[in-house]
Amino acid sequence: MVIVLKPKVSEQEREHIIKFIKDVGLTPHVLLGEERTVIAVIGDERVLQKQPLAALPGVEKALPILSPYKLVSRDFKKEDTVIDVGGIQIGGKHIVVMAGPCSVENKDLLTSIASQIKKGGASILRGGAFKPRSSPYSFQGLGEEGLEYLSEARRLTGLPVITEVLDPRDMPLMAKHADILQIGARNMQNFRLLAEVGAQDKPVMLKRGLSATIKELLLSAEYILAAGNAKVILCERGIRTFETATRNTLDLSAIPVLRKRSHLPIIIDPSHAVGHTDLIPAMAKAAIAAGADGLMIEVHSKPEEAFCDGDQAMLPKDFNQLMGELRKIATAVGRTL
Amino acid sequence: MVIVLKPKVSEQEREHIIKFIKDVGLTPHVLLGEERTVIAVIGDERVLQKQPLAALPGVEKALPILSPYKLVSRDFKKEDTVIDVGGIQIGGKHIVVMAGPCSVENKDLLTSIASQIKKGGASILRGGAFKPRSSPYSFQGLGEEGLEYLSEARRLTGLPVITEVLDPRDMPLMAKHADILQIGARNMQNFRLLAEVGAQDKPVMLKRGLSATIKELLLSAEYILAAGNAKVILCERGIRTFETATRNTLDLSAIPVLRKRSHLPIIIDPSHAVGHTDLIPAMAKAAIAAGADGLMIEVHSKPEEAFCDGDQAMLPKDFNQLMGELRKIATAVGRTL
Amino acid sequence: MVIVLKPKVSEQEREHIIKFIKDVGLTPHVLLGEERTVIAVIGDERVLQKQPLAALPGVEKALPILSPYKLVSRDFKKEDTVIDVGGIQIGGKHIVVMAGPCSVENKDLLTSIASQIKKGGASILRGGAFKPRSSPYSFQGLGEEGLEYLSEARRLTGLPVITEVLDPRDMPLMAKHADILQIGARNMQNFRLLAEVGAQDKPVMLKRGLSATIKELLLSAEYILAAGNAKVILCERGIRTFETATRNTLDLSAIPVLRKRSHLPIIIDPSHAVGHTDLIPAMAKAAIAAGADGLMIEVHSKPEEAFCDGDQAMLPKDFNQLMGELRKIATAVGRTL
Amino acid sequence: MVIVLKPKVSEQEREHIIKFIKDVGLTPHVLLGEERTVIAVIGDERVLQKQPLAALPGVEKALPILSPYKLVSRDFKKEDTVIDVGGIQIGGKHIVVMAGPCSVENKDLLTSIASQIKKGGASILRGGAFKPRSSPYSFQGLGEEGLEYLSEARRLTGLPVITEVLDPRDMPLMAKHADILQIGARNMQNFRLLAEVGAQDKPVMLKRGLSATIKELLLSAEYILAAGNAKVILCERGIRTFETATRNTLDLSAIPVLRKRSHLPIIIDPSHAVGHTDLIPAMAKAAIAAGADGLMIEVHSKPEEAFCDGDQAMLPKDFNQLMGELRKIATAVGRTL
Repeated sequence: MVIVLKPKVSEQEREHIIKFIKDVGLTPHVLLGEERTVIAVIGDERVLQKQPLAALPGVEKALPILSPYKLVSRDFKKEDTVIDVGGIQIGGKHIVVMAGPCSVENKDLLTSIASQIKKGGASILRGGAFKPRSSPYSFQGLGEEGLEYLSEARRLTGLPVITEVLDPRDMPLMAKHADILQIGARNMQNFRLLAEVGAQDKPVMLKRGLSATIKELLLSAEYILAAGNAKVILCERGIRTFETATRNTLDLSAIPVLRKRSHLPIIIDPSHAVGHTDLIPAMAKAAIAAGADGLMIEVHSKPEEAFCDGDQAMLPKDFNQLMGELRKIATAVGRTL
Repeated sequence: MVIVLKPKVSEQEREHIIKFIKDVGLTPHVLLGEERTVIAVIGDERVLQKQPLAALPGVEKALPILSPYKLVSRDFKKEDTVIDVGGIQIGGKHIVVMAGPCSVENKDLLTSIASQIKKGGASILRGGAFKPRSSPYSFQGLGEEGLEYLSEARRLTGLPVITEVLDPRDMPLMAKHADILQIGARNMQNFRLLAEVGAQDKPVMLKRGLSATIKELLLSAEYILAAGNAKVILCERGIRTFETATRNTLDLSAIPVLRKRSHLPIIIDPSHAVGHTDLIPAMAKAAIAAGADGLMIEVHSKPEEAFCDGDQAMLPKDFNQLMGELRKIATAVGRTL
Repeated sequence: MVIVLKPKVSEQEREHIIKFIKDVGLTPHVLLGEERTVIAVIGDERVLQKQPLAALPGVEKALPILSPYKLVSRDFKKEDTVIDVGGIQIGGKHIVVMAGPCSVENKDLLTSIASQIKKGGASILRGGAFKPRSSPYSFQGLGEEGLEYLSEARRLTGLPVITEVLDPRDMPLMAKHADILQIGARNMQNFRLLAEVGAQDKPVMLKRGLSATIKELLLSAEYILAAGNAKVILCERGIRTFETATRNTLDLSAIPVLRKRSHLPIIIDPSHAVGHTDLIPAMAKAAIAAGADGLMIEVHSKPEEAFCDGDQAMLPKDFNQLMGELRKIATAVGRTL
Repeated sequence: MVIVLKPKVSEQEREHIIKFIKDVGLTPHVLLGEERTVIAVIGDERVLQKQPLAALPGVEKALPILSPYKLVSRDFKKEDTVIDVGGIQIGGKHIVVMAGPCSVENKDLLTSIASQIKKGGASILRGGAFKPRSSPYSFQGLGEEGLEYLSEARRLTGLPVITEVLDPRDMPLMAKHADILQIGARNMQNFRLLAEVGAQDKPVMLKRGLSATIKELLLSAEYILAAGNAKVILCERGIRTFETATRNTLDLSAIPVLRKRSHLPIIIDPSHAVGHTDLIPAMAKAAIAAGADGLMIEVHSKPEEAFCDGDQAMLPKDFNQLMGELRKIATAVGRTL
């Protein structure tokens, strides 16, 4: 931590600040500059994160040096985390594709989509039973019935299932049906829910919030690890910007940034980011070229009848063709798919 | 709804789209332009909001004409909603000021702050017992103990209490201690929580999410009204932009926009928006000049010892001086404070 | 400047960095922390701004302590700058209102608008002769003819004239007709144009770019002052965010931030920020309450016939009524209008 | 164009609007909905773009159906535009890499960098002689001397040269030295400069502004085509968002969006977008996977001595290694490099 003092700080204020730093067990170094006095703090500055330093009289600003997260950081754990889901490795050399409909609508359709994407090479089935929707008048998901269809589809196809959890009270149901719990973008900072998924032992895929910085995404992941669950997968799915040509702006530079800062696997969801099927292939290819560990893609056999986000769902045949193209990119970057 | 067709739409596709519209009970009007064909849809287009129109072959884009919310809209209810909280009217001629510490830390401090802000003219006491914090290592609130201190402060000062609810499972506790339930910015789209506060009858203050549009804020409010609770207060507290000089960018233009679109009362929270005490007075004054029905301001008697957001907490004496200045602006716009 | 070194920096790299700092005449202080080594640099770090510090092997990041601008800063000049334009003081106790049409369209209309706004209390006439328009097919302004109409309107009403300059080659024409030169938002970082207006002696109003930070706005102003012209007026006119309910988001918190950092006068343009006449009054009032030194407002007697931005032009009678309301707010904050 | 009327529009207002539409030669179709009346306008709505429709009494909003640009659009010209620069095709099957230092600093260094990148496979030399810098105290470029060094480097290596033009008055100099004129992000809406480069016949690379929408980028390109120069190359170089982990957010989804809407070639500049050398390789690969026609990459043999943006300049050996990796991605998407 570096604390910059105000130009006209009094000696009394300065002494007070120095005492404050010593009182929390850290060592202050005072540096008298020409225009400003700066106090460099030696020691684990994370204890200072709980302190309102800028409220101390005489302080102009406090600049942290260390990142505020620990367990998720590459400094803490050098080697990449690889997570096993029913024999499938997420975060290893093989790129994992999660596919399926936005929401689970009926059993036969789900099973049919599941078997088609499996043929294309997808290894995990996605599908929402509880859907967070902007409008109270939109379809909110089939709930428990949807979860049962997902379990049934897994039984028939062997594909592990990822589905979103919205409410701590749904955890027992989730424990029964899901292989990976998804925390959606809107709940990235629902800290109670993070603590809850951290207290059980299934893998968790944490989606970046629409206006969350990469630092905040990692802090939310830290909540889950700090609660005891180290099986966290990070997912970039587009951030909110001024551009309206796409639903959101897919921030692919998050891949190398996260890779550098954290050991956790990284999944990209181009479907929610761009919002139009014709833009998905380009972004899926780009994600793999940029080093993603996997993709989440919406596939629906009758997009126009989908209850949710049909605009962005690929047809199974288009998805399967895309898989062939993605395989070439994976090879080009030394991976398999 | 206006549906714009692709340049090379086939007749079969066009007929399919027309049939689709008729099937949901609406009337299509086909307009052949020079470069594009457009289908205008007559009827309550809200039924189309559940439909993935853009997934229909031949559709280029669909432009909604009506707003997607209903109960919260000015069209639905012309006169301003005024909400009574223990005799205090929110949304009327009198401007309401909610003040207090970011988090409840100890009983004596809270009571002391409460009585000081009451003297300054604040009419509602704010204070967090459950705190949503970006880092798992930051202070998370005193929980039930904090709620009890709030109840005690109300007993001693007569000030109604507003506090944040984070988890549906905390509702019984909240029912016991809070006069107004606050939904924080991070939970604006926690739809389960919205449904829960909609199913009880205390007033709810809904804060705008950091990257939520005004339309999304109103849709989240619609969730609460649709669940049966019409006592909703809207709160703007800053949106996330590229600017880093302030913590967030306070969007005061939300006031006239919300006033035009909705009948619900509007509160501005300058403290969280700007993040520095020395910027709060200017923005508090501006909020009242722009027509806000009230303010939420953080006040702490020892900001440097605050467990949370001490940087943005005003001293009681500064708050009380500000109240005097705000009163002049209130008079200038024909209101009281 | 504080330079944070990489975790595994070699001694050779560290020595190289230290030598680099000494070579530019500054003094390095090395602080060995538990996780990171930090080098605090004593001396005027502005010389380091030209250096690619992060390109030095072993450097993780460099954190500047001082602001990069000088002449525009409050540290450099304590007292507010007041600029005289034909007897009108901008930046003093009296709040200055600049009003008029977006673009100059014909002589009679301009003169008629000018005399109406003068009656309402406006003290400066605005009007564009050269218009920067997103589309090449939109009206681009009358050019020199428009400037002549502005001169004529000044002769008839006595109102000084502010108009936008787009091109260094137009400077001689501007010298003849304008009292204040406006640099539009799109040209805030047209550094050649900034140097040009800095090399002459008329006052310049510099509008903040749509995605410019406050720091960048001040750096652009620094260009003008550094070129010799200290008569610079800063103008906030809305920044680009994700919100689409308003044309841009008016960042009123820029007022207290700029006031703290700089001595230059601050004008707010609510018309361009919000883009709809019915939102302008609320934002104009808010701007004055927040401490603006003046406003720029579009007024047109026949908005529906305006060649440019008619959607946001107020009628003269509405403008004059607003002026009455603004006067009350001005009084409430201890100023005149 | 679809015009939505206000709920309480009078018959007189409606008739006025209809007359207005007919007067500009278009055909109105009135559609009476349950809550709103809508007027669909048949004919080339671009004439309406000059009209302030929303200023007409009774109009709530106007929704355009057609895109506002024409010459740059895929509708206007189906086949991809391929631009020849000294025998190098930009926009064809071969992916073009432009590389070199941010700014031209001295002749030997430039020539050395040029010959090294040529060996790596770069086909165009970049280098700034006139530099737009946020601060007036930063290095502003060598000017004409820099242009001469570029000419000399071309003579020695055979590489065509791209360099930025800042000022219409520099055009004669540019004509002498540059093969491609670059319009920088800060000048994307410097319409005078666009007109100027449109009036000469060298190819122009137009960089997207930091807060420019894709529509605005295409409108700026339209300025150049409308002025007579069809040799325009579009360049995405990062947009400004709330994320601070990267200098800007590289919007790679702009590639498929631009490909769909326009026939012009698309170049990606990852160096300026991300701002750190270690993030550039991932984004360069992603750009090619997403379908870019080329890249612009900063290369400097002594980044720590660069006068500008050294933090983001790759070493020639790292650049040459990256070229090898990029070649594999190019092959995977059916192109050469």
